[in-house]
Amino acid sequence: MKDFRQRELVERARLVIPNGMYGHESVASLPAGFPQFFSRADGASIWDADGNKFVDLMCAYGPNLLGYGNAGVEWAAERQRALGDTSTGPSEIMVKLAEDFVAMIDHADWAMFCKNGTDATSMAMVTARAYRGRRKILLARGAYHGAAPWNTPGLAGIVAEDRAHVIYFDYNDLNSLADAIRGHEGDIAGIFATPFRHEAFANQTEPSLEYAQGVRRVCDELDALLVVDEVRAGFRLSRDCTWSLLGVRPDLSCWGKVLGNGYPISALLGAEKARIAAGSIYATGSFWFSAVPMAAAVETLRQVRETDYLERLTDMALRFRAGVAVQAATYGFGVMQTGPAQMTQILFEDDADLRRGFHWVREALEGGLYLHPWHNMFFCSAMTEADLEVSLTATDRAFAALKAVGGKLPAQDNAAILTRIARMAKSAA
Amino acid sequence: MKDFRQRELVERARLVIPNGMYGHESVASLPAGFPQFFSRADGASIWDADGNKFVDLMCAYGPNLLGYGNAGVEWAAERQRALGDTSTGPSEIMVKLAEDFVAMIDHADWAMFCKNGTDATSMAMVTARAYRGRRKILLARGAYHGAAPWNTPGLAGIVAEDRAHVIYFDYNDLNSLADAIRGHEGDIAGIFATPFRHEAFANQTEPSLEYAQGVRRVCDELDALLVVDEVRAGFRLSRDCTWSLLGVRPDLSCWGKVLGNGYPISALLGAEKARIAAGSIYATGSFWFSAVPMAAAVETLRQVRETDYLERLTDMALRFRAGVAVQAATYGFGVMQTGPAQMTQILFEDDADLRRGFHWVREALEGGLYLHPWHNMFFCSAMTEADLEVSLTATDRAFAALKAVGGKLPAQDNAAILTRIARMAKSAA
Repeated sequence: MKDFRQRELVERARLVIPNGMYGHESVASLPAGFPQFFSRADGASIWDADGNKFVDLMCAYGPNLLGYGNAGVEWAAERQRALGDTSTGPSEIMVKLAEDFVAMIDHADWAMFCKNGTDATSMAMVTARAYRGRRKILLARGAYHGAAPWNTPGLAGIVAEDRAHVIYFDYNDLNSLADAIRGHEGDIAGIFATPFRHEAFANQTEPSLEYAQGVRRVCDELDALLVVDEVRAGFRLSRDCTWSLLGVRPDLSCWGKVLGNGYPISALLGAEKARIAAGSIYATGSFWFSAVPMAAAVETLRQVRETDYLERLTDMALRFRAGVAVQAATYGFGVMQTGPAQMTQILFEDDADLRRGFHWVREALEGGLYLHPWHNMFFCSAMTEADLEVSLTATDRAFAALKAVGGKLPAQDNAAILTRIARMAKSAA
Repeated sequence: MKDFRQRELVERARLVIPNGMYGHESVASLPAGFPQFFSRADGASIWDADGNKFVDLMCAYGPNLLGYGNAGVEWAAERQRALGDTSTGPSEIMVKLAEDFVAMIDHADWAMFCKNGTDATSMAMVTARAYRGRRKILLARGAYHGAAPWNTPGLAGIVAEDRAHVIYFDYNDLNSLADAIRGHEGDIAGIFATPFRHEAFANQTEPSLEYAQGVRRVCDELDALLVVDEVRAGFRLSRDCTWSLLGVRPDLSCWGKVLGNGYPISALLGAEKARIAAGSIYATGSFWFSAVPMAAAVETLRQVRETDYLERLTDMALRFRAGVAVQAATYGFGVMQTGPAQMTQILFEDDADLRRGFHWVREALEGGLYLHPWHNMFFCSAMTEADLEVSLTATDRAFAALKAVGGKLPAQDNAAILTRIARMAKSAA
């Protein structure tokens, strides 16, 4: 795989960006050889800086729902761009977007738009506190809800007071939730839930019906707000809030990533009972009212409502999962494919230091497939039969390569990643 | 002024958005009749939903530096869009942007990009705490540094612990700064400064040379980081960090608004000594690595370096200020024009309830000029001679109207705004 340009960019980046890169798209925690910089994206594919092409099962860590460069979304954005984008007031398209979104999401009576997923979760947190003037926020241990001081998984520069009123409990465990609440009954502002348990480095788990409905009941009893954080899972499992599949209506839901199919926009949706609280908080940003991402979102929502994007991406996801399962069995590897197929997590059994996983995804990359060794992946509706064939050919090649090295799997330079696993395990304790 | 469409949009918005609108672009605190929703922006002008056209002295509250729809910026964005935007990794253009930006800003050795101004100020705050493992953050009383729990001017849903380690002092007052530090010398993480004092509802003031250099000296003595928050003032007073005009190099600077001339991107820049701390914090967002805003930023920075945009917008700003001063004297009004002309604040003397100011800007709006009655304004380099003439004709008309009503100025429905003034005054106390 050519990497001349990549190596030059990495050297230059090291000089002008701390650690050469930061955040979730840094490859510091990926196997050596994963490209850091890219040159192109189209449909379900990405090209790195040297022109190497990959079918992309990360979909920009979520935003790519309908395909990179989706014609309808690009056309809607282009049409709005000719009129205006960031201006002294919002465009009238903001009203249409709020109307369309609220009409689609059963629990929602109003909408507020922002930029980052973290904006939406932080607004939900502040709204929950404003609702009854209470303080305690309940988060499932290990769940990712953003990168602000109150919820970031990284602890550098964070002070104890940032989490003074955050209480952790175990996902899918109503007893743990009850223990977390005990003694704070009159001070519970809100309980956060991800649609399913989509932690990094771990098998994913679906919530039980009893759990989801139990959390709803607890919130009702306490007059606290139930917040479902759809930022990562939104519209990949349902055309409504994901917990609508379980018959549970949250009071607030947080959306981002897919909302503009890659255009920067996120949102907080809420039920009538939370409207006054949401209207009381101070929430704003320089680009929150820009019209182009809103036009992209109106069209993305239209395609969500009116096309079979969900059935198509689900079909591809299930066929990929089935194919990998057959290959793993054929080559004799224990592979755990967990979570919904549309957002699959793939981990190897007996692979605590991710040695097998790293080798496997590295070989798949050589075969033209971009997989992630410890984060859930994402399918988009632009994946073609040819893309699926490339993908399964690449995974087959990777299993074969893994089998070829047998017990002699070379030690990977996993120091950074292992440190991170240890830190995550510790912070989750 | 036609407002049929406006009224329909406002009614619809009220149903699906808390209070019908939120954040800094809500017109709830502006005079009745200010349009909430817009349909178009071009050059230095905006059109409301009914097609009423205004010369826009708010410039999207800052982002519009080179003109709405600036041809060079749009072309750069379009070219990048054809390649890709939000993807599974950053584009190589991220490296070029970091290189170009660092080369332009004297104090900067590295750059990190984000979306909101609040992202940049929050990253600066966390970086300052990570730098020596300290906790105290010093903010000037009344200064706006963003909308996160640690710095938002609104207090709904905010808990005491959010500001447990924030200490306030008076801008331009080294004694006040010394008092704020006393007893915390070993725990000072960072001191924030705006380039000048640009508070809402108040006359603006420039920092004294003694003050700016004194803050730098205090930071050096304490080994704390000096953060200059350029989000609002960046590139309107200088092509470098604004305090370079005073010979002061900060350790960190925060940028946003103008960086992509309206495309959503913000940044934290830093000196070498802060690189490790910045590299240690957890900072990320779904759209922080999108390539199109970075391409827009590369071209915006090029125009900042290579064109006379600054001289042109400064010339227009000075001529507008001079014109308004002559008109005010002619009509016999005491008008305070404060702060740099490029970011002028205009308040009437003896106008505590903003009655005159509200009437004046309302009349100017009827004349085709969009002014703000209590927030600093912004000039862009796309303003033409014709725009300036429209502007000064509108202000002349507004002064004439104000004079015509004489002492019989009607009571305005200023309840919301007066409540807000009272709250700001209280929170500043």
